Amino acid sequence: MKTLQDYIDKLNSLNFKEMYNGDFFLTWEKTDDELEAVFTLADALRFMRENNISTKVFESGLGISLFRDNSTRTRFSFASACNLLGLEVQDLDEGKSQVAHGETVRETANMISFMADVIGIRDDMYIGKGNAYMHEVVDAVTQGNKDGILEQKPTLVNLQCDIDHPTQAMADMLHIIHEFGGVENLKGKKLAMTWAYSPSYGKPLSVPQGIIGLMTRFGMDVVLAHPEGYEVFPEVEAVAAKNAEKSGGTFTKTNDMAEAFKDADIVYPKSWAPFAAMEKRTELYGNGDFDGINKLEQELLAQNAEHKDWACTEELMATTKDGKALYMHCLPADITGVSCETGEVDASVFDRYRTPLYKEASFKPYIIAAMIFLAKFADPADVLKKLEEKGTPRVFD
Amino acid sequence: MKTLQDYIDKLNSLNFKEMYNGDFFLTWEKTDDELEAVFTLADALRFMRENNISTKVFESGLGISLFRDNSTRTRFSFASACNLLGLEVQDLDEGKSQVAHGETVRETANMISFMADVIGIRDDMYIGKGNAYMHEVVDAVTQGNKDGILEQKPTLVNLQCDIDHPTQAMADMLHIIHEFGGVENLKGKKLAMTWAYSPSYGKPLSVPQGIIGLMTRFGMDVVLAHPEGYEVFPEVEAVAAKNAEKSGGTFTKTNDMAEAFKDADIVYPKSWAPFAAMEKRTELYGNGDFDGINKLEQELLAQNAEHKDWACTEELMATTKDGKALYMHCLPADITGVSCETGEVDASVFDRYRTPLYKEASFKPYIIAAMIFLAKFADPADVLKKLEEKGTPRVFD
Amino acid sequence: MKTLQDYIDKLNSLNFKEMYNGDFFLTWEKTDDELEAVFTLADALRFMRENNISTKVFESGLGISLFRDNSTRTRFSFASACNLLGLEVQDLDEGKSQVAHGETVRETANMISFMADVIGIRDDMYIGKGNAYMHEVVDAVTQGNKDGILEQKPTLVNLQCDIDHPTQAMADMLHIIHEFGGVENLKGKKLAMTWAYSPSYGKPLSVPQGIIGLMTRFGMDVVLAHPEGYEVFPEVEAVAAKNAEKSGGTFTKTNDMAEAFKDADIVYPKSWAPFAAMEKRTELYGNGDFDGINKLEQELLAQNAEHKDWACTEELMATTKDGKALYMHCLPADITGVSCETGEVDASVFDRYRTPLYKEASFKPYIIAAMIFLAKFADPADVLKKLEEKGTPRVFD
Repeated sequence: MKTLQDYIDKLNSLNFKEMYNGDFFLTWEKTDDELEAVFTLADALRFMRENNISTKVFESGLGISLFRDNSTRTRFSFASACNLLGLEVQDLDEGKSQVAHGETVRETANMISFMADVIGIRDDMYIGKGNAYMHEVVDAVTQGNKDGILEQKPTLVNLQCDIDHPTQAMADMLHIIHEFGGVENLKGKKLAMTWAYSPSYGKPLSVPQGIIGLMTRFGMDVVLAHPEGYEVFPEVEAVAAKNAEKSGGTFTKTNDMAEAFKDADIVYPKSWAPFAAMEKRTELYGNGDFDGINKLEQELLAQNAEHKDWACTEELMATTKDGKALYMHCLPADITGVSCETGEVDASVFDRYRTPLYKEASFKPYIIAAMIFLAKFADPADVLKKLEEKGTPRVFD
Repeated sequence: MKTLQDYIDKLNSLNFKEMYNGDFFLTWEKTDDELEAVFTLADALRFMRENNISTKVFESGLGISLFRDNSTRTRFSFASACNLLGLEVQDLDEGKSQVAHGETVRETANMISFMADVIGIRDDMYIGKGNAYMHEVVDAVTQGNKDGILEQKPTLVNLQCDIDHPTQAMADMLHIIHEFGGVENLKGKKLAMTWAYSPSYGKPLSVPQGIIGLMTRFGMDVVLAHPEGYEVFPEVEAVAAKNAEKSGGTFTKTNDMAEAFKDADIVYPKSWAPFAAMEKRTELYGNGDFDGINKLEQELLAQNAEHKDWACTEELMATTKDGKALYMHCLPADITGVSCETGEVDASVFDRYRTPLYKEASFKPYIIAAMIFLAKFADPADVLKKLEEKGTPRVFD
Repeated sequence: MKTLQDYIDKLNSLNFKEMYNGDFFLTWEKTDDELEAVFTLADALRFMRENNISTKVFESGLGISLFRDNSTRTRFSFASACNLLGLEVQDLDEGKSQVAHGETVRETANMISFMADVIGIRDDMYIGKGNAYMHEVVDAVTQGNKDGILEQKPTLVNLQCDIDHPTQAMADMLHIIHEFGGVENLKGKKLAMTWAYSPSYGKPLSVPQGIIGLMTRFGMDVVLAHPEGYEVFPEVEAVAAKNAEKSGGTFTKTNDMAEAFKDADIVYPKSWAPFAAMEKRTELYGNGDFDGINKLEQELLAQNAEHKDWACTEELMATTKDGKALYMHCLPADITGVSCETGEVDASVFDRYRTPLYKEASFKPYIIAAMIFLAKFADPADVLKKLEEKGTPRVFD
């Protein structure tokens, strides 16, 4: 699009009024219009920043981040999104805080939210826990707002849970849309979400699940490939199948990486841990059985090692559509001979796709900002219009 | 009050000019007018935020927080207050910094304050140390400002010391004022600040001391109840007695929890460590005698365990005024059967008062912001007026 | 100067156009005009803050700080500088992040920079590594900006590397300029950069190197004094010699502290580790030889102990010009009888110079802000003019 008005017109053609005062948990809980609103607003915010138009819609307010797992890129993406809108980030570091000392989720959620406009949570380690925890937090602040404790209900952005990784999958999808020149060009394209070998252990399932749960909505032929024993949540596979049927695409599974890559337009080779193993691990943690956990980790590393042939090699890439499939990854990737001896991808493949990979990541701050924006304003298109008229520069000129 | 002008008129009727360029250490170092100015301004700032009027009075500037003890709520309250006024929080984490490496307080205080408008300190662990440390910091930055090193003298907000917890006690008092419909309705009301059993050890004395040091100034009948051996600072008891006499209320002590609860309008049951034990602990730390500390902790846990009957039960609540006393706590509370087997309060009592308890906490960010505001502006009422005239929205509209 | 226009006129008389979109690595990579532009702009920003004129030139944007060594003053100076210009600081804490987990510098640099306008790095521990790392980061974000991944190229500010400590040396120099009433008064003044004994071990070389690399450019007679075996980088000594020749001053070396102090106008006594030892240490770290490191540290402490007579005493101070040389230090100093038994300086000397020492430090936030400002605006003088015309107060009035 060429002008901000184009984005505004697009927004005005979509129905996303349910997003106002809402939250973002899972992409498949959102309508197609709602997802398109996120993509459109993300592009609009990027257009405004590139044209030095301030998008600061908050004079004050906090963006709370709660990470239960280390993170560079997600942490900075969330901080960037908050800053872009005028919110100051405050980390709820459980090391620093009393959360670890028996304080209830309900109480903490309210105590940190008196001036919070958004809460971003990453909690992807334990099956059946992360998403449930996010709902607990949202229920608590919704009640707090009803009871007159909180002047505003902070909106929740799921920065990765045990089920989905919506900010990643949406950023990935926006990248695909830009690479292929629009959603309308995706029908019939083949996307291979495949497992790949990594020497590190226990990577979360939320990325492959997020990808098959979202990419199946655009008429593409989505293939999920992994060795036997590396299944993902059955519930999410069911979502993917339903999506594919509705969108006129397909969702298929295979235990053959080569079959998945054959003639693929897009490949997303990435390691993850087996669902069953992650469930067992969650149970062992619950029982504080750390010997059991160490034993399980050794078993899984050994199991992984049986599948070192699952790698994104030049040979495999050559079998993709015109040998030029779009290679994707959430980063960081395990690069053979670079970050490890044997990993997910050949160094030469990764090098060739470095720029698109970085661009893929660059959409995440805008996706997060768009999710916040859509939850906070009843008429986002009107706000964009007024911001353009106001024309405050981001950088003084 | 219905309009901002009402708050402005109220402020104009009070004498608080000594607060300008001052600091906030202990409530009993402030006049009645000064405390009322804090309450009035806190309500005014909340009114403005609720009406989407920006209270951002700083274009830039830092709010330094120094916590010598873990904290969620106080940390976020301070961050919220600073953000509300336009100040960016920077934590002086002694882990990260060189303070622990022999740097003097005077030097550090100046090095961090070149662009600091406020310093918030929590240092409540050691008897005779926390408040003294805060004074050292204030003396250092006051001198630094005189010497032309600091362009401004940052104001200190005591976020909890060994003697008082003024932001907590003031937030608690503002809650009471709202619950009872005004200060004028508090004469003759009975408030019971009582010890309660907790399985955890060594909770600071600053809360009970802060409560008896402040609540005795409004004509209430304040009762301090605890088992023998759980005395608080004698100096603070003397302050409470003097306050009560001056305000036309009373300050009495008892070792009988039931007597304290009888016909009480307000109850504040909470665990704390004996003053004598805390003094001994401070000395042991000074000598690096960690075996002695462990031994002391075991003794105190055993001593606590002798008083499990000191709990806020439904039976006791039934004996309060109409069985409906306002239950208060600084949170987090040790809830019997929830956060511990036997604790400070019955789960059913806590549940019934959850909403008022959260509201009680919600006043703290505004109390802190008001303390900063009153130290930074010679004519706060005029600033409020101008902010209203300017009418910048907090959230874009 | 008396008015902002004086600073603006001064800037307009200097040629620093190469600084636009540039970075700040080493002072000797900058022209005299460029350094004077930094000093002038730093003074201008301070003048504006003292006159309550907002210098907030960014509506949004991040300032990334990456510290590989603990720091209070540099951390707060960077945070203050960013805040003064409107940038929010985000720390890239390698503990929190995945940098430590094999992620490449190139990738991390881009992932954190989507909305970063400045990156400040302190990496001074290992010879041949810190400055090289900063260049890697700058190369990565420069490429990322070219490739359309980053909408802006963040500017790098060297907050201390293995070679130079430009923000410290520049702040020190600005202090000297103010103390002596202008650069024009420095010709022929004698400055003694001398080693001094400290019980602590392995202090970086970047301060003495930064001082001789910068102070030799103003026509002063700069003397570097240290015991045998405490040599600094030969390359930096060569820079100092060349500077001195060009500026009409001198650069000499001695192993006699008394000779250095004799008739000195300025003395800078400070401990550092021998270059050769730091090189060996770097190698030992590279090999993970921690026994070797411990052995080396013991050797160095023993070596230091042979030179306890290298201290800034009253006796030595008495031999300086009129017994009144300006005593300088980057702080914190090892003060005899205060922070250690025997250290770099007598307590009475330190006490007498405390105020100038704190003033010296107070220039650093403005120096950093000026470096950022000059990299971000093509016509800084014009921006200052417009900011003055706009006249937004920093503190509401």
